[in-house]
Amino acid sequence: MATADSNTDLRNGYTIMSVREALIRQEDTIIFSLIERAKFPINSPTYDKSYASSFDSLVEFIVKNTESIQAKAGRYKNPEENPFFPEYLPSSAAPNYPFPQILHPEAALININKSIWKMYLEELLPKFVAPGDDGNYAQTAACDLSLLQAISRRIHYGKFVAEVKFRESPQEYEPLIRAQDREGLMNLLTFERVEEMVKKRVEKKASVFGQEVGPVHDENQGKYKVDPSVVSLLYEKWVIPLTKLVQVEYLLRRLG
Amino acid sequence: MATADSNTDLRNGYTIMSVREALIRQEDTIIFSLIERAKFPINSPTYDKSYASSFDSLVEFIVKNTESIQAKAGRYKNPEENPFFPEYLPSSAAPNYPFPQILHPEAALININKSIWKMYLEELLPKFVAPGDDGNYAQTAACDLSLLQAISRRIHYGKFVAEVKFRESPQEYEPLIRAQDREGLMNLLTFERVEEMVKKRVEKKASVFGQEVGPVHDENQGKYKVDPSVVSLLYEKWVIPLTKLVQVEYLLRRLG
Repeated sequence: MATADSNTDLRNGYTIMSVREALIRQEDTIIFSLIERAKFPINSPTYDKSYASSFDSLVEFIVKNTESIQAKAGRYKNPEENPFFPEYLPSSAAPNYPFPQILHPEAALININKSIWKMYLEELLPKFVAPGDDGNYAQTAACDLSLLQAISRRIHYGKFVAEVKFRESPQEYEPLIRAQDREGLMNLLTFERVEEMVKKRVEKKASVFGQEVGPVHDENQGKYKVDPSVVSLLYEKWVIPLTKLVQVEYLLRRLG
Repeated sequence: MATADSNTDLRNGYTIMSVREALIRQEDTIIFSLIERAKFPINSPTYDKSYASSFDSLVEFIVKNTESIQAKAGRYKNPEENPFFPEYLPSSAAPNYPFPQILHPEAALININKSIWKMYLEELLPKFVAPGDDGNYAQTAACDLSLLQAISRRIHYGKFVAEVKFRESPQEYEPLIRAQDREGLMNLLTFERVEEMVKKRVEKKASVFGQEVGPVHDENQGKYKVDPSVVSLLYEKWVIPLTKLVQVEYLLRRLG
């Protein structure tokens, strides 16, 4: 029999270590998706509700309908995935797969995608895309969807972070949960040194992945496809705080 | 008035230079997409026609239906885009955008996505994904779609390459076209030194974009998310020859 240390499979494959690795890997996906979205200018008709009478807005049309297809193919059976428009989803037509179910049922349903959607469109997007219009609105919205999904997965992964931390030392969390002490929980989950390290790492990744690779051209030295400081800001202002928000909300429901 | 050199806008924005830059930028998209697909193991139920009775195969279901949504949002109005399942596409519900129309109408319709699809599933995929099954079939198929679209766009960009080359020196191409001399055209389009340079560059890009970025861990040194030699092979065996095939097929119809 395996020893019950924090790296064994007692949590159906989720451990402090595996959760940490998943978060790091998801940074790459977010940065690749930022770079791919930045290939296109802002393309504002994509977001304009009056652009075409057949759509709410083109981005909503693409996101709702693509989510719907992916739902039918089983995407949201994996508890790591959270849809932006859950009210429109058909059920899965795919056979069940035994995804590990480690989340506490009361708390598993947390979905803050409405806030992520608003933050993305109103705050993040204008910070990293160029002005302009090249007519590629469907492609732009498809890039928005991939990026939104990557950011959402990262932030909602807070549920798994919270669950493995809780199982690691329930005695630390239970009194705060019983007292419904948000601030106490937030303090317990905050490690400024780690947050600084994450911000530095994503900035470095953005400069590595967003560089021009090829024979040295002077004019491209130090030019990045997405400003690395925007990626650091995305983590500082939204990804880290919203992940902690998800963790706190999850823990508040953990004994329910 | 602007001088009629090869960099002016006489070709509605397409020039030898702009086409070359687009090809280079598309390399990054292909490599990011390869890395993202490689996050998942092979996940063979994604490709298995007997997996779920509601689907042909899950990858076909995702690709056909996502293309259909994107078509409605206007994706295929851009002559740079070529669908995998043109027979299933609804027409665009978006207002028209004035995409530059530089391709010769007879030749613009070339679509070799059937060959790309077969190559991708039968030859490329097994070369760069790990064995295994993690149940994320919808996500896997969504990654397949992004990668297929990136490879297809790159290969069909051969039409634009051929058109700008033809306009640059019609006197070189016309006799070969009139003689329907495939081999002669292929020789005229082949620059081995450039092909070698492209293969080296994509291999280098794969090693830059696929590296582990962070504090130095010995166990990750020299470990890449996708083997750079597979990217070089993808270009050598398929991307470069199929782009040239598209160019030759395009030119053969150029005076039609």
